Amino acid sequence: MDLKRELSKRTDVFNRDLEEYLKNGQPRSLYDAAGHLPLAGGKRLRPCVSMISCEAVGGDLKRVIPFAAALELIHNFTLVHDDIMDKSHLRRNLPTVHIKFGEPTAILAGDLLFAKAFEVMHEISGDPSVFKRVNSGLVNCVRDICEGQQLDMEFEKKQDVSEKEYLEMIRKKTAVLFRFSAEGGAILGGGTEEEIIALSKYGESLGLAFQIRDDYLDMSSDEETLGKDIGNDIRNGKKTLIAVRSIDNAVGDDKNLLEKIFGNGGASEQDVKRVYDLFKNMKSIEYAKNAALGYSIKAKKALDMVNDSDAKQVLIELAEYSITREK
Amino acid sequence: MDLKRELSKRTDVFNRDLEEYLKNGQPRSLYDAAGHLPLAGGKRLRPCVSMISCEAVGGDLKRVIPFAAALELIHNFTLVHDDIMDKSHLRRNLPTVHIKFGEPTAILAGDLLFAKAFEVMHEISGDPSVFKRVNSGLVNCVRDICEGQQLDMEFEKKQDVSEKEYLEMIRKKTAVLFRFSAEGGAILGGGTEEEIIALSKYGESLGLAFQIRDDYLDMSSDEETLGKDIGNDIRNGKKTLIAVRSIDNAVGDDKNLLEKIFGNGGASEQDVKRVYDLFKNMKSIEYAKNAALGYSIKAKKALDMVNDSDAKQVLIELAEYSITREK
Repeated sequence: MDLKRELSKRTDVFNRDLEEYLKNGQPRSLYDAAGHLPLAGGKRLRPCVSMISCEAVGGDLKRVIPFAAALELIHNFTLVHDDIMDKSHLRRNLPTVHIKFGEPTAILAGDLLFAKAFEVMHEISGDPSVFKRVNSGLVNCVRDICEGQQLDMEFEKKQDVSEKEYLEMIRKKTAVLFRFSAEGGAILGGGTEEEIIALSKYGESLGLAFQIRDDYLDMSSDEETLGKDIGNDIRNGKKTLIAVRSIDNAVGDDKNLLEKIFGNGGASEQDVKRVYDLFKNMKSIEYAKNAALGYSIKAKKALDMVNDSDAKQVLIELAEYSITREK
Repeated sequence: MDLKRELSKRTDVFNRDLEEYLKNGQPRSLYDAAGHLPLAGGKRLRPCVSMISCEAVGGDLKRVIPFAAALELIHNFTLVHDDIMDKSHLRRNLPTVHIKFGEPTAILAGDLLFAKAFEVMHEISGDPSVFKRVNSGLVNCVRDICEGQQLDMEFEKKQDVSEKEYLEMIRKKTAVLFRFSAEGGAILGGGTEEEIIALSKYGESLGLAFQIRDDYLDMSSDEETLGKDIGNDIRNGKKTLIAVRSIDNAVGDDKNLLEKIFGNGGASEQDVKRVYDLFKNMKSIEYAKNAALGYSIKAKKALDMVNDSDAKQVLIELAEYSITREK
């Protein structure tokens, strides 16, 4: 199976609809800002997960499209606001919304994407009690994402973050939306409660695998050409699985090094390199790679409950892709 | 009838519920920031309008409480984000959320209030198709408010804003939420379609009356002690009804004065005073006062369709209060 082709088949339909939702609207400046990121592309992972989960329970793809669009709009709303909070200048090789349109318009553009997501949800046809269930689940996701982002920001200033706390943070910040992408797709596809639970578990594990693989990829560049991002993450004290694992286990001089350098904005290139080498020597980078692998296996295992189909095969390969991808 | 007492009767119940919705939740710092403004009080006008509209069509007050809370949460979410955009330092005599908790947390706190509003909506009991209707109306309000706020920001940089454009802006930024407070209250109260339309019209006119009265109050301080806010509004080129009316009608030297001073950040105290005097001499301040009066009358007229009741009398007095209030 060609995973890329399978995903493209779905995103081709989806992208046309997404553009339709954002194309018109006044004032133009606000809609241009709101469309800047979602119309610039992206992997459309969450919409794909929802569409394929719907198919996997034998549902009609058309019914899930508004939900798929809402997922992507919410994801983009959080990116627009996160970029303001993190003072990021680039995303998807483009200037971020607040850099291009100014911060006030960027805040509003995020708010508008949030509103648009729940506006689009009203295009879901059929039983209003099913709509209500999916709408409620999606609102809860946004609440969790806000809580997760706040935890992420607080963790940067906190030295002793445990692995459990880290997992709770990425579960809220990233995994809940993946979880509900699969769960909502199964609900709208008319799946049984068992199938809905199975896909919910699949989505959560997939989200965790993706996020931890991100942590791994961010830290696994060639050590001779230690990337700017790695340096920034070490200087900012960004709590990735690699960092929290190292902090949890370091003793003696290693512990002192981390306390002195990790999260120290003024750390030298040499010190940053020493922390990076420590992460490597403690096998924390390897540990993260294996943790992602574990969640990928767990995701596939959750699908045992679901009848075999082409769609199920795509979900399995997506779980494999989540931990083999190089970007 | 003692209007204040009638409103207090409703807000006493409502405030307890609102506090309940925001009291718990982690991380604490985020919930403290989110609760800062809504739990500091405020007139609770939108919740009151929804509750009394529900009563006016013979509905059960309990059913409308989650909707009333959602209205107040949305109103507060927009205030938190607007204060960031406007760089405001004070609101309700307290430091604004971004001043007290920092901008990143304030952006998130606004997002969380937005999410919480739609979470609380799910406590509405009964027919899911009624829930869906009210949910859809409320989402559309948020979209309109975003569009209205963008227009408001753009108008500050635009010299030739017509009265029609101004009205469209405040309709979106302020009146739609008042409109839907009354409309949604009537829907949840089980009103007839005629009653729902009547209350919708009432709410829109009430919102316009409130907003224009605000414009009037902001400009009607003693001319000998010209307030700091008036000076700021003139220097920022804030497009109130008073300003757009003056710009529309000024000719010759008056027109030149406005072009030179209105919206000129570096204007002297003396020049600001000349613009203020011009507004007064052109009777634009008086004009705004009368426009608010017109909408108040229109609001009351819309209620002709609704059966007489104590609740209807409260709505009538609220429309009168909207244009007699001094703060």
